[in-house]
Amino acid sequence: MTDQKGTLYGLGIGPGDPELMTLKALRILQSVSVVAYPAPDTGDSLARSIAAPHMVEGQAEIVIRTPMTPGNFPADDVYDRYAAEIAGHLDGGRDVAVLCEGDPFLYGSFMYLYERLSGEYRAEVVPGVSSLGAVAAASGRPLVSRNQVLSILPAPLDEAELERRLGDLDACAIMKVGRHLDKVKRVLARMGLADGATYVERASMPDQKILPLNEVDGARAPYFSMVLVRRQEGNAEGAEK
Amino acid sequence: MTDQKGTLYGLGIGPGDPELMTLKALRILQSVSVVAYPAPDTGDSLARSIAAPHMVEGQAEIVIRTPMTPGNFPADDVYDRYAAEIAGHLDGGRDVAVLCEGDPFLYGSFMYLYERLSGEYRAEVVPGVSSLGAVAAASGRPLVSRNQVLSILPAPLDEAELERRLGDLDACAIMKVGRHLDKVKRVLARMGLADGATYVERASMPDQKILPLNEVDGARAPYFSMVLVRRQEGNAEGAEK
Repeated sequence: MTDQKGTLYGLGIGPGDPELMTLKALRILQSVSVVAYPAPDTGDSLARSIAAPHMVEGQAEIVIRTPMTPGNFPADDVYDRYAAEIAGHLDGGRDVAVLCEGDPFLYGSFMYLYERLSGEYRAEVVPGVSSLGAVAAASGRPLVSRNQVLSILPAPLDEAELERRLGDLDACAIMKVGRHLDKVKRVLARMGLADGATYVERASMPDQKILPLNEVDGARAPYFSMVLVRRQEGNAEGAEK
Repeated sequence: MTDQKGTLYGLGIGPGDPELMTLKALRILQSVSVVAYPAPDTGDSLARSIAAPHMVEGQAEIVIRTPMTPGNFPADDVYDRYAAEIAGHLDGGRDVAVLCEGDPFLYGSFMYLYERLSGEYRAEVVPGVSSLGAVAAASGRPLVSRNQVLSILPAPLDEAELERRLGDLDACAIMKVGRHLDKVKRVLARMGLADGATYVERASMPDQKILPLNEVDGARAPYFSMVLVRRQEGNAEGAEK
C-alpha cells in the first residue's frame, strides 16, 4: 500500500523574514499534518519562528533537538531516532514537512533525515532563499559579477586552510562565523582583506546588523552571521572569453 | 520633493517555477506601476514568463534588451539608457520593479542598474531562490555539508583556470555552461571528475532535465544549465574542529 504513505518535504523557509518564504513552501506548510523543525539543545527554534505566522491549527509538531558532539556535529543516533519518529507518521499516511532555514541542501541538516528516509518514502526538496542572497541584499553590494568565482567558506575551517582558500579569492562568504569570529578577523587582517570586509548578522530579520568587519567587537558572533569578502577594485574581473 | 520619488526594486523571482517566488516579491510585484525585465536580443523574456502568472493589469513594462559585445557583456551605454528610462518613472513617483531570475545579487545583471540608480533613488533588493538551490533540489543530493567549501565557477573561465580551481575542490557548481559545455566536459574528464558530475538544465521548470554529465550529448547547453561536481566519497569531510 505504498501510495498510502505520506510524503516527506524538506521545506526551505528562507533566511529569517517570514515574507521571504516561497509560495510553494507556504502551500505545502499549510497542507501537511506534521511539522518538524530543528531547535537548539535548549531554547526556541528559529525555523519555527520563521514559519509560525503561516502555520495552521491542529498540526502535530516534532522538535528536532540535536546536542552537539565534541566534533561539533550531532551523533548519528540522534538522527536515527528522529527519522524513525518521522517514518511512523509517513507510514500512517501523514505528510511531514521538515522546516529548513535558508535552503535545505546548502549546508542544511535536513540532508541527514533525507538520506535516511528518501529511499523508502516519497521525498521532495523545496529550495528556499539562502542566507547568502539575503546577506548580499542587506549589504547593498552584489556578491559576484560576470566571471568571478564565489567561494563559500565555513568559518570552522582551520586557520591555515582558511588563509589558503582566501589567498585565491574573487569573492567569498564566510559562513557559520559564531565562535570563530576572532580567528576570521585575524586571518583577514593578516592578509590585508579586513578593510573591505562586511559583517552581517541575522540578515532579513528585524534585528539585522550590518557593519564593516573592522567595527565588530568581541570574539564571538551569533551562529547566523556571515562575513563577506571581495577582491579589491582594480583586479575585479576574472578571465573572460 | 524626494519623498515623491518612486522606489526601485530588484526583485528576485526565483529559478523558474512561478511558485518559487517569495511572498515578498509577489506583494511588491503586484504593487508597482512599472515592471522591467531582461530579455535576449530577440525573443521572449524568461523573467517575464516566470512572473506572468502574478502580474496585474495596467502595469507598464520595460523590456531590457542587452545585445552582447564580443567580451560577452553588454556595453555600458545600454544600461545608461535603461537607467535613464527607469529614472524617468521614478522621478514621476512611480515604483519600478526589475525582475531578476534567481537572486538579484548573485551574478545578476540588476547590479548594473542598481549601481547607476541607487545613489539618487530609494532602492531595495529582494533576495530570491537561486538556481543553485533549485539545481541541488532537482539533483536529489545536497550541494555541501558540514565544513565543506562550495565554489561557484562560471564556465566561461579559461580552461586552465577552470582546471586549477577544480583541483582544489570539495564541491562546486559550474554555472553559465551554455556554449562552454564541451570545454567543461573535457576538463572534468581529464581530472577524473566527470563520473560523479551531474548536469541540470532549467531546474524547477516544466522542461527540467537532469542527467549524469557523461550522458549529455552535444557541445552546447542552454544558458540556464549547471554542472554539479562533488569530491568523491572517502575524503568527503573538510577540516573540522
